[in-house]
Amino acid sequence: MTRPKIYLFGDSITEDSFSPGGWGASLAHHFARTADVVLRGYSGYNTRWALKVLERVFPASQVGDGGTVTAPIAVTVFFGANDACLPDRCSAFQHVPLHEYKRNLHSIVSFFKKRWPTTLVLLITPPPIDEELRCRHPYVENPQGLSERTNEAAGEYARACIAVAGECGIPVVDLWNKMQHRKKDYLSDGLHLTESGNDVVFEEVIKKLRDEGLSQESIPVDLPLIADIDPNDPLKAFLE
Amino acid sequence: MTRPKIYLFGDSITEDSFSPGGWGASLAHHFARTADVVLRGYSGYNTRWALKVLERVFPASQVGDGGTVTAPIAVTVFFGANDACLPDRCSAFQHVPLHEYKRNLHSIVSFFKKRWPTTLVLLITPPPIDEELRCRHPYVENPQGLSERTNEAAGEYARACIAVAGECGIPVVDLWNKMQHRKKDYLSDGLHLTESGNDVVFEEVIKKLRDEGLSQESIPVDLPLIADIDPNDPLKAFLE
Repeated sequence: MTRPKIYLFGDSITEDSFSPGGWGASLAHHFARTADVVLRGYSGYNTRWALKVLERVFPASQVGDGGTVTAPIAVTVFFGANDACLPDRCSAFQHVPLHEYKRNLHSIVSFFKKRWPTTLVLLITPPPIDEELRCRHPYVENPQGLSERTNEAAGEYARACIAVAGECGIPVVDLWNKMQHRKKDYLSDGLHLTESGNDVVFEEVIKKLRDEGLSQESIPVDLPLIADIDPNDPLKAFLE
Repeated sequence: MTRPKIYLFGDSITEDSFSPGGWGASLAHHFARTADVVLRGYSGYNTRWALKVLERVFPASQVGDGGTVTAPIAVTVFFGANDACLPDRCSAFQHVPLHEYKRNLHSIVSFFKKRWPTTLVLLITPPPIDEELRCRHPYVENPQGLSERTNEAAGEYARACIAVAGECGIPVVDLWNKMQHRKKDYLSDGLHLTESGNDVVFEEVIKKLRDEGLSQESIPVDLPLIADIDPNDPLKAFLE
């Protein structure tokens, strides 16, 4: 039996998604008996760097449990928060210009579509930025004392991400908009997610997966559930 | 690149290990850049049922990303809480006699040792039982009003599990003892784990893995960490 896989590909908001209350862990819990949620999060990465490592993160000869090549059922692509670092502030080395971000996202989607034509590719926009909170938590030295990201710039990248999804005909979670009016609830340091922020991502992702026909109900359970085991003859459930 | 895998094989305490603050999610978070933590938890299962499904859960032709057969670096085996259900109480259909539990655990360990000679097999004993809490949370109808499990019986199964580990020369986490004196803190319903209980399992598991040479430091990081990327020439880090 090959258990279906869902890959989470992205930056620190993906890498941290198995921290307590994290959206990745919630997905793994949700699909505990139906699908494996596989973490491929890379803190600090932008789409330019993601493109450089794509072949190494997702090798061509990906082979499943049964010895056959298996495509994951879904992959989330969640980049943009680092691309959107401003080019004249303290995290400039992570900045990727908007037009390149768009082109890179297209390349990432094409890579997956070519490798795994049946796999659902789900884009997630960068979250909004709370600049006031953000100034207090720079990743690098910040002599200017200015936020290395702005909410406005993140919004431009979010809109570009949505445009790419439209051009590719794939679904997208518009996190920037979804979180815009409760930034202090959803963002712990002005960028990364609180538990409530993680809940939003989890709920939005399962909603999009469900819209595309992927849900707890549609994916077969791997082995008998305890509720389906006859207390008077438990072993009957395990006949092959 | 094939990312090393750690399998978690067990009953509901494993299946639930990706709930908020769960020990499985904490392991996945801890090894976010080094190893995949793969959930194979089956609520309600005892060792007798586990043996029936072993071949299906871990197919012979397990093949890695590179197309070669790859063994996981570790597998946790965490059964006994259901085997220890009393034979004359409301969850009797899950009960497995002590001598059979011991034999079954031996068979499970042998299966892994034969399939993957280099893989670390780590046993975890059943946790203690808080009978008072447990009576209030029966899984099935409970006309007797008595706990379907007792702390004393769970302790016998824990000692059997420790004996099997000794006989096989493999490590074991003695959860029953570790949690004995703070049962109300560690058990939410007299059997399953609270967040503090999950922390204990996580800490004990990483300690045992570390003792056997498996740690964040010993497993190679898959791709450059942000701290290792030169801000003046980021792409240098991605030359293959």
